[in-house]
Amino acid sequence: MGFLDRVEAAMQANNSLLCVGLDPSIERLPAAVRELTRPIFAFNKAIIDATADLVCAYKPQAAYYHACGAEDELALTIDYIHTQYPHIPVILDSKRGDIGSTASEYAVEAFERYQADAVTVNPYMGVDTIEPFTRYKNKGTIVLCRTSNPGAAAIQNLVVQSDNGENIMLYQVIAKMCREHWNGNGNVLLVVGATNPEELKHIRAITGEMTFLVPGLGAQGGNVADTVKNGLNEAGKGIIVNSSRGIIYAGNGNDFARAARSAAMELRSEVNLYR
Amino acid sequence: MGFLDRVEAAMQANNSLLCVGLDPSIERLPAAVRELTRPIFAFNKAIIDATADLVCAYKPQAAYYHACGAEDELALTIDYIHTQYPHIPVILDSKRGDIGSTASEYAVEAFERYQADAVTVNPYMGVDTIEPFTRYKNKGTIVLCRTSNPGAAAIQNLVVQSDNGENIMLYQVIAKMCREHWNGNGNVLLVVGATNPEELKHIRAITGEMTFLVPGLGAQGGNVADTVKNGLNEAGKGIIVNSSRGIIYAGNGNDFARAARSAAMELRSEVNLYR
Repeated sequence: MGFLDRVEAAMQANNSLLCVGLDPSIERLPAAVRELTRPIFAFNKAIIDATADLVCAYKPQAAYYHACGAEDELALTIDYIHTQYPHIPVILDSKRGDIGSTASEYAVEAFERYQADAVTVNPYMGVDTIEPFTRYKNKGTIVLCRTSNPGAAAIQNLVVQSDNGENIMLYQVIAKMCREHWNGNGNVLLVVGATNPEELKHIRAITGEMTFLVPGLGAQGGNVADTVKNGLNEAGKGIIVNSSRGIIYAGNGNDFARAARSAAMELRSEVNLYR
Repeated sequence: MGFLDRVEAAMQANNSLLCVGLDPSIERLPAAVRELTRPIFAFNKAIIDATADLVCAYKPQAAYYHACGAEDELALTIDYIHTQYPHIPVILDSKRGDIGSTASEYAVEAFERYQADAVTVNPYMGVDTIEPFTRYKNKGTIVLCRTSNPGAAAIQNLVVQSDNGENIMLYQVIAKMCREHWNGNGNVLLVVGATNPEELKHIRAITGEMTFLVPGLGAQGGNVADTVKNGLNEAGKGIIVNSSRGIIYAGNGNDFARAARSAAMELRSEVNLYR
């Protein structure tokens, strides 16, 4: 079963388009958790147990684990999800991008070492970067297209001359490449930030039924109604809506997991309201 | 002392523009090394001891360590260089790129966890990606501009409309941003592949005296004479020429370190011939 099928099954089972980002900074963990032996894994486990019936995916952000040398806790987290909640796929958000021989090593990292179901990749270096990931047919390769951060527009909205003389923006070129050239195995998705509802609409027009990972709600300020309205494909599907800090740090006391559950329920409902 | 000063001091001390890439795949290590307890670290140590008087920098490629869970061996390698050869700076080639809060975590990884002297970063997400790195004033931030891989041109050579109506390629826009906007702390460098000598010339024209990290010689096929001629700045400096596989796998028997030394001597001399 391919990644997209697994995500869709989880969306149906939990009536949810919500992905929870597992981006734990040691200094933001509740005091009681910080004192445990493997605080990040303990924190993630509590968040996962509290939200597994509310989500269609989890997305650990690699940087948080790399910064403090917690690769083992990343591996334990992914393994915990696979073992306890095997129907919920895991996206490793590591935004890798390198020449072919090196990208193959990053694919081994994501899909073999960590057993992630999908990974995010950066398209700046071209198809050599993408292909070593898409070669894993049952895994998802999620290409950065229009990201949610304030500085993205200065690069991604540059106006580019296309082959047919038409002028389109760089993120639109990437969207076209994803659809026309990189998706031969049907396992490519796109990252499209919720902070740019207009761009979401343009990318939907280019990519047809393809699925988007949509970060930028919550802490980054994206609007739920616009995101859902502009992001959904004609079948009323095609978006995985991510929230990280807005959910995992909803509370910071001993009831943090319950607070995360409430925040996840609320966002799931709000998203479903506009489907 | 800033990264660029340290590189330049090493260039002078060793009369060398050569950087050796430490990209060890377990399956390509000599059989005798593979049987050791920490084979990657043992291999790197031998390569480093054999070449430390011939190089201006070392560049471990993060992917090779991540793929097999050898983060401890990456840390040991960098620490070994700092301890034994403190005048040789270390570039962590991890091509990170993410939104600001996450990029900060990647900067912690590179500069605090691993104590690297410089790191490679991907510009697709814009200035938010760059600034958390350049904030470390004594460290180098090396931005991907025109990379050495075959698929790069399809993205990096897209023709972009610039503010003044002039049409330039995407990699040239990135080069301009590096020079005009991102280099406020004087610690930005650019990655420019040796496989594109014409582009090297264009980027030199845009960036003045800035320093380039130039991969793509050896296994990737770049030409030394053209690379040096087109890459050097007016002061006859400004390029760090990287070779990885061409040096570390020059031999694969018990004399691999001696073979690496010969390959490094040869490339150093060839580069110096055209300076």
